[in-house]
Amino acid sequence: MDLHAIQTTLDQVAAPYVKALGLEVTAADPHRTTLRMPITPALVHGGGMLCGQSLLSAADTAMVVALSVAEGGFRPMTTVQLQTSFLRPIPGSTPEVTLVCHVLRKGKSLAFGEIEIFTPDGKLAAHATTTYAFI
Amino acid sequence: MDLHAIQTTLDQVAAPYVKALGLEVTAADPHRTTLRMPITPALVHGGGMLCGQSLLSAADTAMVVALSVAEGGFRPMTTVQLQTSFLRPIPGSTPEVTLVCHVLRKGKSLAFGEIEIFTPDGKLAAHATTTYAFI
Amino acid sequence: MDLHAIQTTLDQVAAPYVKALGLEVTAADPHRTTLRMPITPALVHGGGMLCGQSLLSAADTAMVVALSVAEGGFRPMTTVQLQTSFLRPIPGSTPEVTLVCHVLRKGKSLAFGEIEIFTPDGKLAAHATTTYAFI
Amino acid sequence: MDLHAIQTTLDQVAAPYVKALGLEVTAADPHRTTLRMPITPALVHGGGMLCGQSLLSAADTAMVVALSVAEGGFRPMTTVQLQTSFLRPIPGSTPEVTLVCHVLRKGKSLAFGEIEIFTPDGKLAAHATTTYAFI
Repeated sequence: MDLHAIQTTLDQVAAPYVKALGLEVTAADPHRTTLRMPITPALVHGGGMLCGQSLLSAADTAMVVALSVAEGGFRPMTTVQLQTSFLRPIPGSTPEVTLVCHVLRKGKSLAFGEIEIFTPDGKLAAHATTTYAFI
Repeated sequence: MDLHAIQTTLDQVAAPYVKALGLEVTAADPHRTTLRMPITPALVHGGGMLCGQSLLSAADTAMVVALSVAEGGFRPMTTVQLQTSFLRPIPGSTPEVTLVCHVLRKGKSLAFGEIEIFTPDGKLAAHATTTYAFI
Repeated sequence: MDLHAIQTTLDQVAAPYVKALGLEVTAADPHRTTLRMPITPALVHGGGMLCGQSLLSAADTAMVVALSVAEGGFRPMTTVQLQTSFLRPIPGSTPEVTLVCHVLRKGKSLAFGEIEIFTPDGKLAAHATTTYAFI
Repeated sequence: MDLHAIQTTLDQVAAPYVKALGLEVTAADPHRTTLRMPITPALVHGGGMLCGQSLLSAADTAMVVALSVAEGGFRPMTTVQLQTSFLRPIPGSTPEVTLVCHVLRKGKSLAFGEIEIFTPDGKLAAHATTTYAFI
């Protein structure tokens, strides 16, 4: 799958609530997919920081994209669980975050992934692990 | 805090991305807070199901509300981690989900919570646990 | 299954490392299984507290027992993931802890559970959620 | 800290239940600590596989060691949460597993880590993330 096809699939499958994040797939190979999420005012809470909810949404979405890349196309799947740790607050003035998603294991019925979320200075701001079931 | 005050705080503090969920606080006491999330087309993905991302966002937000209730007012805090399990897919035609949030432990610097997400037929559809740090 | 049959199954299936915990099944019905773990000096670390590792082991084991009860007998299964939160330290002088395990959802291939760990004063000391796959 | 000092600290602080795992620290620097766990019959369950409970115990312990290395000595700390995913079953005939622990973030009061568990053929068999609080 080329980047354009992946992005098109994401835009077709995702709910409007997810598309509102403006996620852009910037690199993809079967073991590692990278997405960019611009930080817009809609994602910033009253304390002036990027809301964690946007990172949760983005992490879950990144894994769908990474698994689609690993499968060579979109395949119906469902999130079994997602665990996210928030390591550093991200100021709302930060232009964007980068999500790097690794498929840790793709079995017959279950797949496992890891998502790292970096700020532009290269610092790890959040970290997630997830399990997906193919359906 | 009465329900109106809690709802006002939520509407003031939450990012627009979170307010877009339309969460409504329907009951609150120091150990248990209940919210209602209407399922709108914006939350439904291409497969016709409620997108899990909306549940992640709602679960995280529910805990902020529950802790504010337990504290008697909003207090700055940050999510340390959130673990969510998805037990059943929720059809997009379901009118709403109910989130019941329990504060499991409120310590000096850390607080722990559990969020149960039910469909209108009373079935548990998702379950989350979370850690918050007061700042 | 009566309690004796459950205990016998546990003792036959568990690794010696798990049997060393001395877990005793004290109540069981399809939705809720209760176990008792005595706190012995072998489980206490240099700081005088019950080691968290024993709670992790016990929580994982409790879910195997609870699922066996729910299935009406032992069925091969594997832990997919276990998330545990430690709410309060437990002094090594505490005589025992009680584990209450709920099967949150038992599907065709996956099962979800919750384990609460209480000290004798009724306080919640640790909380776990877990996913199992039938094999 | 040299490897001998680290191992001595581990042997002094850990509960007998943890020492029974026979964990050996094989490499250590502030960002990455490696341990070896021999697979003995005591860790193998009735189905002939390494029991997951031993991996949970080892993962939690690995993070204590990694943080002690990062701090330059043992410092009192407590596990806040540990999330472990089991990617592949490990046959009981496998001679050992290797745990690689990364400190993802060491803040003033909280620290975050990731533990990868490999079989001798280099395959990732389990993956954990964890939060610790300094006390």
